[in-house]
Amino acid sequence: MSKKIVVIGGGAAGASAASRAKKLDPSAEVILIEATDMITHGPCAIPYYVEGIVKDRKMLVTYTPEDFERDRGIRVLTNTVAKNIDVDKKVVVLERDGKELVMEWDKLVIATGATPAKPRVNGVDLKNVYTIRHPAQADELSDAIRKANNIVIVGGSYLGLEMAEAALSLGKKTILIEKEGQLLPRSLDRDVADIVAKEVVTRGLELHLSEPLKEIIGKEFVEAVATSKNIYKTDLVILATGVKPNIELATKSGIKIGITGAVEVNEYMETNIEGVYAAGDVAEKRHIITGKKVWIPLAPSANKEGQVAGANAALGRSLRFPGIVGTAITKFFDMYIARTGLGEEEAKEQGFKIESKLIKVRTKAHYYPKGTYVYIKMVVDASTGRILGAQIVGWEESVAEYINSVAIAIEKEMTIEDLFFADIGYHPAVAPVWHPLIVAARTLSHGRF
Amino acid sequence: MSKKIVVIGGGAAGASAASRAKKLDPSAEVILIEATDMITHGPCAIPYYVEGIVKDRKMLVTYTPEDFERDRGIRVLTNTVAKNIDVDKKVVVLERDGKELVMEWDKLVIATGATPAKPRVNGVDLKNVYTIRHPAQADELSDAIRKANNIVIVGGSYLGLEMAEAALSLGKKTILIEKEGQLLPRSLDRDVADIVAKEVVTRGLELHLSEPLKEIIGKEFVEAVATSKNIYKTDLVILATGVKPNIELATKSGIKIGITGAVEVNEYMETNIEGVYAAGDVAEKRHIITGKKVWIPLAPSANKEGQVAGANAALGRSLRFPGIVGTAITKFFDMYIARTGLGEEEAKEQGFKIESKLIKVRTKAHYYPKGTYVYIKMVVDASTGRILGAQIVGWEESVAEYINSVAIAIEKEMTIEDLFFADIGYHPAVAPVWHPLIVAARTLSHGRF
Repeated sequence: MSKKIVVIGGGAAGASAASRAKKLDPSAEVILIEATDMITHGPCAIPYYVEGIVKDRKMLVTYTPEDFERDRGIRVLTNTVAKNIDVDKKVVVLERDGKELVMEWDKLVIATGATPAKPRVNGVDLKNVYTIRHPAQADELSDAIRKANNIVIVGGSYLGLEMAEAALSLGKKTILIEKEGQLLPRSLDRDVADIVAKEVVTRGLELHLSEPLKEIIGKEFVEAVATSKNIYKTDLVILATGVKPNIELATKSGIKIGITGAVEVNEYMETNIEGVYAAGDVAEKRHIITGKKVWIPLAPSANKEGQVAGANAALGRSLRFPGIVGTAITKFFDMYIARTGLGEEEAKEQGFKIESKLIKVRTKAHYYPKGTYVYIKMVVDASTGRILGAQIVGWEESVAEYINSVAIAIEKEMTIEDLFFADIGYHPAVAPVWHPLIVAARTLSHGRF
Repeated sequence: MSKKIVVIGGGAAGASAASRAKKLDPSAEVILIEATDMITHGPCAIPYYVEGIVKDRKMLVTYTPEDFERDRGIRVLTNTVAKNIDVDKKVVVLERDGKELVMEWDKLVIATGATPAKPRVNGVDLKNVYTIRHPAQADELSDAIRKANNIVIVGGSYLGLEMAEAALSLGKKTILIEKEGQLLPRSLDRDVADIVAKEVVTRGLELHLSEPLKEIIGKEFVEAVATSKNIYKTDLVILATGVKPNIELATKSGIKIGITGAVEVNEYMETNIEGVYAAGDVAEKRHIITGKKVWIPLAPSANKEGQVAGANAALGRSLRFPGIVGTAITKFFDMYIARTGLGEEEAKEQGFKIESKLIKVRTKAHYYPKGTYVYIKMVVDASTGRILGAQIVGWEESVAEYINSVAIAIEKEMTIEDLFFADIGYHPAVAPVWHPLIVAARTLSHGRF
């Protein structure tokens, strides 16, 4: 009898898992359960759809359910909600068209993703207060922003900055409030965040740091936002205050939640229940530097975790997910922001004695006319010179690619000396002969190289 | 008594060595000997000076001799030729203003660089036949190209392509002849070179492959170029047929030349003679993949080798140069070409059983409008999956940065599985969620991931 593999959640991780499982075991019956009417939806595209860079709403998904059914032989149940899992009986209870449906499984992949974490203040449910997660809401949000005049974005997160770009480029008066004293507090060190802050203000964003949200004010529609310091009139609020893993289904089914609050998994993406895997934003990840569990929900690892879960659901333990180092990239107009590994404070908290330095260097040979400057902050272990992290801010797309070289260097435990001597390419139109990453490594060498 | 460190050659390696030595041992007397009137000259800039992208000839050097003397405390002797080294007496014989000068040294660094290798045919010394190496000739060349109508470039090397761009953008009818059946025969595999060839022809270059140069025809000035197949009328010829190490001084002084024809050095950049170092284009390099000596003369390693030679000349064995993997980048108008590691044939010659694949993938998320395509060919060891090389051709600058991630991956002996799972960053405006490098790795996994 063929194996039945059920995947709950049609986002990046779930769709990857289902595809992979069916590909590796074509005899298996693979069913993908999705609560909305879209699969393989990309939340990362929403700001650019709202901004008008992405023109067609259809582009917000990579595949339709029909693609999956026809081309991949995967049964897709959209508009279907998983209500409960019985791990002993190996069934999942589904709700579809108001009816309950009990589905058996041999292997189960939980890929229920994450949802926006709304701040616990009054008024978060007023009209014209938006969170952003699913492309299904993109049209409504896009229309509402176009009609609004004064937009307040709560949260200096990646999404907050990306939505600020969208609002500003639509010509809206835009305010961003952030409770911490810096933008991107979970991603950047203060000194690097200050560079970003300077640029966003130059671009017309009204930025208020160190102002926790206290209340969203209004009757039916939002009228103002109150922070610890001020009241800002607004007719549209975007809450970009982070996300939380959708663990309800896992929790009530006896699937173990880890110390990060997301589903605990091992390197095979196995949960504590045999035959049950978790992948993507609902699952914890292992940080390669510290070996500790973290919850950094991003699309690239979600896709790969889905692959691993799907492969192992199909074939047994055949593939391992080694973990992450926290690489992330965002942009704000023509400013690119990238980071990987541990920030300065993060590294200290993990017990490292660190050294770090923020440098500003040219991106091209001194004689080549089109260069700009790039800021690079590198964090290293003071005793060994091992690279622990890097943060990069620049005004050319290629600086975002720098971060991948550092991410790989970190994963392979390179020291600044290794990076200094790495055979990095040179062409005057692409980089100086001393590549900015090499300069960043050298700056921390105490004159040794 | 302070140590006397003499460096012969004021290019990248020599200037680096002198600076480093003086910095690490400020009490040392450091003397830099240079045959021309320029130091820290960048031959890589010449095509862009000729093209007019680099406007100011002064920009072709990084520092003047006066900068070095004043700011770094290094004595610089320009227009001074090293004629002979006596390694027993520890002296170098110099010629300056027609006079001989004998200079003692405690440590000597040979950084005499490389010069163009002229093909052995009749007519190479006719007027308007140029080789390109030193910025000192840049003005003459620039003037001559502007006056010429039909330009023939001999050699489909990096320099050949870069000069072809310059000539075409000055509106000249430009022919490039190459004796091999492909462009960049020492850098790219045939299939990748074919992509480059297609593009250069589209840009208006008249390309003739598999046509060895037979003769350069003319009386005083060049009039035509004869290949194995044709005669091309021309009024200016650029010989871009490679370079050779300037080993004459080393050879006649008893310094050992290695199997590659360049000066043999160990990881400390020491030659066979105690106290004598060599660095840069005159010296061999160790290939990190094969462990064998190679001669790939490029600016980034020249600079680093100079650093190592200078540090060790000053302090004794304190720094090691680990070697290279052959990373190189060039561009032709908006096409970027990058390579690292071993090509397919090269890897086979080294005894590897390899697999490789050439892919063409989008550079951005499918919904993001500004993406182009990038070609990536990855070469891997068939038995272990270890990455041995990559070649990249694309039309965005950031694809050139990809090569650095691969170079680091190769140096750290990563497999395609390691690269697939590497925590590479994602943003729709920068790369697809499956980064082109990840797709390249996956394509070689036989469906395993």
